[in-house]
Amino acid sequence: MITRMSSLFLRTLREDPADAEVPSHRLLVRAGYVRRVAPGGFSWLPLGLRVLRNVERVVREEMDAIGAQEIQFPALLPREPYEATGRWTEYGDNIFRLKDRKGADFLLGPTHEELFALTVKGEYSSYKDFPVVLYQIQTKYRDEARPRAGILRVREFLMKDSYSFDLSDEGLAASYQLHRDAYIKIFDRLDLKYVIVSALSGAMGGSASEEFLAEAETGEDTFVRSTESDYAANVEAVTTPAPPAQSVEDKPESQVHHTPDTPTIETLVDFLNGAGLGRTFTAADTLKNVLIKVRQPSAQTWDLLAVAVPGDREVDAKRLEAAFYPADVALLEEADFTANPFLVKGYIGPKALQDNGVKYLVDPRVVTGTAWVTGADKVDHHVVDLVCGRDFTPDGTIDVAEVREGDPSPDGKGTLVAARGIEIGHIFQLGRKFADVFGLDALGQDGKPIRITMGSYGVGVSRLVASIVEQSYDKHGIVWPRSVAPADVHVVIAGKDDTVRAGGEDLAAALSDAGLTVLLDDRTATPGVKFADAELLGVPTIVVVGRGLANGVVEVKDRVSGERVEVAVDDAVRHLTELVSAGR
Amino acid sequence: MITRMSSLFLRTLREDPADAEVPSHRLLVRAGYVRRVAPGGFSWLPLGLRVLRNVERVVREEMDAIGAQEIQFPALLPREPYEATGRWTEYGDNIFRLKDRKGADFLLGPTHEELFALTVKGEYSSYKDFPVVLYQIQTKYRDEARPRAGILRVREFLMKDSYSFDLSDEGLAASYQLHRDAYIKIFDRLDLKYVIVSALSGAMGGSASEEFLAEAETGEDTFVRSTESDYAANVEAVTTPAPPAQSVEDKPESQVHHTPDTPTIETLVDFLNGAGLGRTFTAADTLKNVLIKVRQPSAQTWDLLAVAVPGDREVDAKRLEAAFYPADVALLEEADFTANPFLVKGYIGPKALQDNGVKYLVDPRVVTGTAWVTGADKVDHHVVDLVCGRDFTPDGTIDVAEVREGDPSPDGKGTLVAARGIEIGHIFQLGRKFADVFGLDALGQDGKPIRITMGSYGVGVSRLVASIVEQSYDKHGIVWPRSVAPADVHVVIAGKDDTVRAGGEDLAAALSDAGLTVLLDDRTATPGVKFADAELLGVPTIVVVGRGLANGVVEVKDRVSGERVEVAVDDAVRHLTELVSAGR
Repeated sequence: MITRMSSLFLRTLREDPADAEVPSHRLLVRAGYVRRVAPGGFSWLPLGLRVLRNVERVVREEMDAIGAQEIQFPALLPREPYEATGRWTEYGDNIFRLKDRKGADFLLGPTHEELFALTVKGEYSSYKDFPVVLYQIQTKYRDEARPRAGILRVREFLMKDSYSFDLSDEGLAASYQLHRDAYIKIFDRLDLKYVIVSALSGAMGGSASEEFLAEAETGEDTFVRSTESDYAANVEAVTTPAPPAQSVEDKPESQVHHTPDTPTIETLVDFLNGAGLGRTFTAADTLKNVLIKVRQPSAQTWDLLAVAVPGDREVDAKRLEAAFYPADVALLEEADFTANPFLVKGYIGPKALQDNGVKYLVDPRVVTGTAWVTGADKVDHHVVDLVCGRDFTPDGTIDVAEVREGDPSPDGKGTLVAARGIEIGHIFQLGRKFADVFGLDALGQDGKPIRITMGSYGVGVSRLVASIVEQSYDKHGIVWPRSVAPADVHVVIAGKDDTVRAGGEDLAAALSDAGLTVLLDDRTATPGVKFADAELLGVPTIVVVGRGLANGVVEVKDRVSGERVEVAVDDAVRHLTELVSAGR
Repeated sequence: MITRMSSLFLRTLREDPADAEVPSHRLLVRAGYVRRVAPGGFSWLPLGLRVLRNVERVVREEMDAIGAQEIQFPALLPREPYEATGRWTEYGDNIFRLKDRKGADFLLGPTHEELFALTVKGEYSSYKDFPVVLYQIQTKYRDEARPRAGILRVREFLMKDSYSFDLSDEGLAASYQLHRDAYIKIFDRLDLKYVIVSALSGAMGGSASEEFLAEAETGEDTFVRSTESDYAANVEAVTTPAPPAQSVEDKPESQVHHTPDTPTIETLVDFLNGAGLGRTFTAADTLKNVLIKVRQPSAQTWDLLAVAVPGDREVDAKRLEAAFYPADVALLEEADFTANPFLVKGYIGPKALQDNGVKYLVDPRVVTGTAWVTGADKVDHHVVDLVCGRDFTPDGTIDVAEVREGDPSPDGKGTLVAARGIEIGHIFQLGRKFADVFGLDALGQDGKPIRITMGSYGVGVSRLVASIVEQSYDKHGIVWPRSVAPADVHVVIAGKDDTVRAGGEDLAAALSDAGLTVLLDDRTATPGVKFADAELLGVPTIVVVGRGLANGVVEVKDRVSGERVEVAVDDAVRHLTELVSAGR
């Protein structure tokens, strides 16, 4: 197939678009692949649509290869199934809701667990029917608060979502692994550099979950990785190793000190170090008691709760939220303190909390035998050497303190460093949450119902296009991997005389006949303009048909390396066909 | 490729769904191709999605063949462009509107003229850039008042919409013709019986327009066709030939008659025929004056208007609406009569109307020299022999009387008969309406701007799937044309012994290797169940591997004719490959 640039609906831009924040946005717009037409809405122009379809094809092939079956749902969905699972409300402002002419409630599907579960329930009933994996490649909608970064964060996007239905936990684990392997193949075929991080599940509920993050400085997702192992995880999923418990016997008695004007950790540490106690204190020796309130889903009232973290660390809001999901969690407001006068702000300690029935959860580092400086429940007073397991007994542990570079890796190998990535895939063992809501059962061999367990797996198809560009560009433009490039070969006719033109046309025709897709620059523009456009567009192999033709050669340029070789015209088809098939 | 029914996500139904009104709905649900999941929303199950993709492929190939370039817009669109063209309001209840989290207005695109015009304006600027034809195959939304007939009338559907951009009317006519030819190829490849009817443009505005209607008794669209020519038209587009004008000289004087108790045409005709006037009157001799009111777009007030049609015909509401589009039109209400006392209800004549400044438009049959019985503007009085061009002069003609079977065909050949069809395509010379709104110009060779003229062309891709079924089924099930069938061959393993099973598997593998798509019924079900499912599913060629295998033969059944032939196993691949390629 030959695509002629003389008639192609394409205009490249010399200037970066003013609103472009990231390379993929800048380059996809400049190269005429996409155009913004709405807040968080982009159109795909011809070459862009071709890349998108190529990515879609790779995803589809790998899904089909694991026996997943493609179906397609509407995007406009009735409220009822989402009401049944509570997600109509849970999604908050993040979904688009609308009413039809009769006033009935609809939403634009952000993900389709409910519909898939209902559909499987509608068709299948026997244990013999399972397992089954269904998927769709479909336009999804989310009302992003701040659409940004071109097509990386939009409100309408193309997604592959699949769902597995199994009779047992082992079956789910196997379906999960099938997807994990398929995703690795997909992202490898797209030449992406990515990490697989342990993840918590966000608004989805459930258990085992991993995210595939394309490494990119421009990524929105932070994650941590080990300096010495493959360990990588979302900050929400990092677990803090607990140190070994210590004996409480040899610890000094706890002592309450008058510590005037020490409402903050810093002032407290300074005071202690100036108080002649015979040792040096750091913030890590103090225990910060943070008061929060938690409201369970569908509950009306909030419960008070205290979280204790070492004084050198903040509570991480995302980790806190994830720890309590699906309950709501919030910091105490002034009114809450007023309503609970036993809370002596700045000087809260475990005693008053537990005496007043407030649950007291501590960081994993707070193990039996550790001694802490903390509040004495009295203005201007702190207690020193309050020993866990002797002077107080936590109601449990909670892992919500901030994760920092240099923290030990949870797998015991090396320390953690922070990195950024773009979420391109998510695999997730949903479990029986949706099956429970809809009563999705299979009749077992023994005549008894078996509750089905589900997995949910997503790939951001349109986002992948941008993710690839984020990892693959240079100062001249985009560099597409061969698997998704808008053409196999970009033939530039560099010259106006009839011989050169005819030579370019002939070569393009021969390449097309050989089964390659050819982008043919047959415009009247100058060679300089054409070369610049070729670099910008990013087809991996550029063939220049120009003055060399008189000597029977064309120039073949590798877009990645910039390397140029002269190839005999007569040998060009063979040369290029080999090049393309080797790289596919 | 082999699709195994033992693991295919497919359950056929023995019973018709209770809500199915038309054959395509009944059969597509029974055969497990689609499922209803929302009011006007269907999911496509694996085999259904395959048929849909096949139809899509045919459409895409023919669009590409005329040089149309595929792009893709969001479905979620901002209000502003539609506000600019007035369609935000004009669409009334027929589109889905919604607000984002910030309260900004959006709609779900029913059609994309605005966006395409703006995009071409954004990219192109010179006369050298034109003409260009762009298209997309995309999910569209309309808030149908009454979704019905399965996937024939839904709220979310797949549509191919294309738009041509030309410098001149001649260019537009050429782009229009290209589409017309492409549509003929598409519908021919889908083996559809269809007519091309002249159409008015509905909510689109513009001039030349034709609809492609798949002939089907279940169709929502009525049209008329000639008994003796190719003429076919929407009822709205039928033109009534005017008879030759006659001399007014030889006509008798008009006379007012006292016609007590004759408020209707019927009572009037009876009265006249009993009044001893020496001739026989029919309803066609009377002139019925129908009072309407018209409100121009953006106007606040209504204008009174009278429409005169022969008394044997009603005014056709759809033709009336089309005649005044984009103005609103309504019949007079009681209050309007009260406000205009010169209107003597049941006895209205042209005199009082024109004396009071009411525009008087007549049916094309009302030509100079024709004599009519009509109201005398006085209760219980009519005038006889009121001659057009002598006793009254119409302000113009209007063609809104009902069209009836037996009316002469506008092309002068034969008479009209009524028929029903499903709109599967629409081609339409939009003209400069949208270009005017957005200032879409090209810079001409002479440096002067040239206003672009547009065409708009739609094919209902998902609706085509149902339209094909409406024309192609029998009492056993669906009969797919080869071009869109979910598989080339349906291989039924009819028998449980290992030889038969192995023979079926081997044949399926050999056919797949030969490039055919195979649906393989490898289930443990009885042959009877399998045969019934094969007929219901409708793959055009069914191969039964059963007892005959012992004699080295399989049975090849043609789904259309029901004809069965025995084919030697060794020859089956050649036989079937030829059969399939001959039918493609």
